[in-house]
Amino acid sequence: MSTHIISLLVENRHGALSRIANLFSGRGYNITSLTVAETEDATVSRMTIVVAGDEGILEQITKQLNKLLDVIKVIDFIDRPIIERELLLIRLDVSKANRREILDLCDIFKARIVNVTPKSVTVELAGRSSNIDEFVGMVRPFGIREIVRSGAIAIAKAKE
Amino acid sequence: MSTHIISLLVENRHGALSRIANLFSGRGYNITSLTVAETEDATVSRMTIVVAGDEGILEQITKQLNKLLDVIKVIDFIDRPIIERELLLIRLDVSKANRREILDLCDIFKARIVNVTPKSVTVELAGRSSNIDEFVGMVRPFGIREIVRSGAIAIAKAKE
Repeated sequence: MSTHIISLLVENRHGALSRIANLFSGRGYNITSLTVAETEDATVSRMTIVVAGDEGILEQITKQLNKLLDVIKVIDFIDRPIIERELLLIRLDVSKANRREILDLCDIFKARIVNVTPKSVTVELAGRSSNIDEFVGMVRPFGIREIVRSGAIAIAKAKE
Repeated sequence: MSTHIISLLVENRHGALSRIANLFSGRGYNITSLTVAETEDATVSRMTIVVAGDEGILEQITKQLNKLLDVIKVIDFIDRPIIERELLLIRLDVSKANRREILDLCDIFKARIVNVTPKSVTVELAGRSSNIDEFVGMVRPFGIREIVRSGAIAIAKAKE
């Protein structure tokens, strides 16, 4: 069991998302996170899928994805150096007594405060998924009121 | 036609994503972006869906979503103050002649350089989707080699 990131360029056809989701769930493959967003071409979306599971099955799924009419391109990042990032919005319980401590953690992780009230702080953090895990681990004791993560997106490292 | 953000808490059941995607595509409703990621509870995922379309149809879809067994909670942000953010990774063509100009734009937008080669710059930017649109508009003339967006995530503004 290991984690993989797959990036797909997909035509914005009716039901494309359902067909792709079915491919994974039909094989009992667990999607950890998924993002779908527009590209520069309005007829094309990019999907970034993070999956955990057996490499053999993933290879089968990649082949099936390539056969789908909706799928223009499958980029499998196995063995390629990538830049991976995720976005976090998190609201924490805060008091006068511990606000300074939270601000210090935000400084360390280069997180941005986006909203403050007398009883809460809302923080935005972009970084590697593992960094976001660490930050969440550090602030969890303060009390998490709400947490929203984007799931990872990734881009291959430039060769030149 | 207007843009709405819907946030769902969803049980990680087999095929949940397909069922939810089907609900939208079955009504011809266009999903602009979608993110699915883990929450603090391993059995629950959060989905953030950005849709463009008629409010009446959206209301119908929200009702249908509430009826799905997979869906624990539907948070419709219509008329609620929210904090909305999106993440961008973008690789631009660069030369000695225009690198300074790109760096200045990154400063202005508070974007981070994550990779540099003699011929390219890769940039990370977290911000409102409209900000990301603006940044992309400003750097497009340099030449976009690759662009990956996360789609928007959102959190309601704290009341206290």
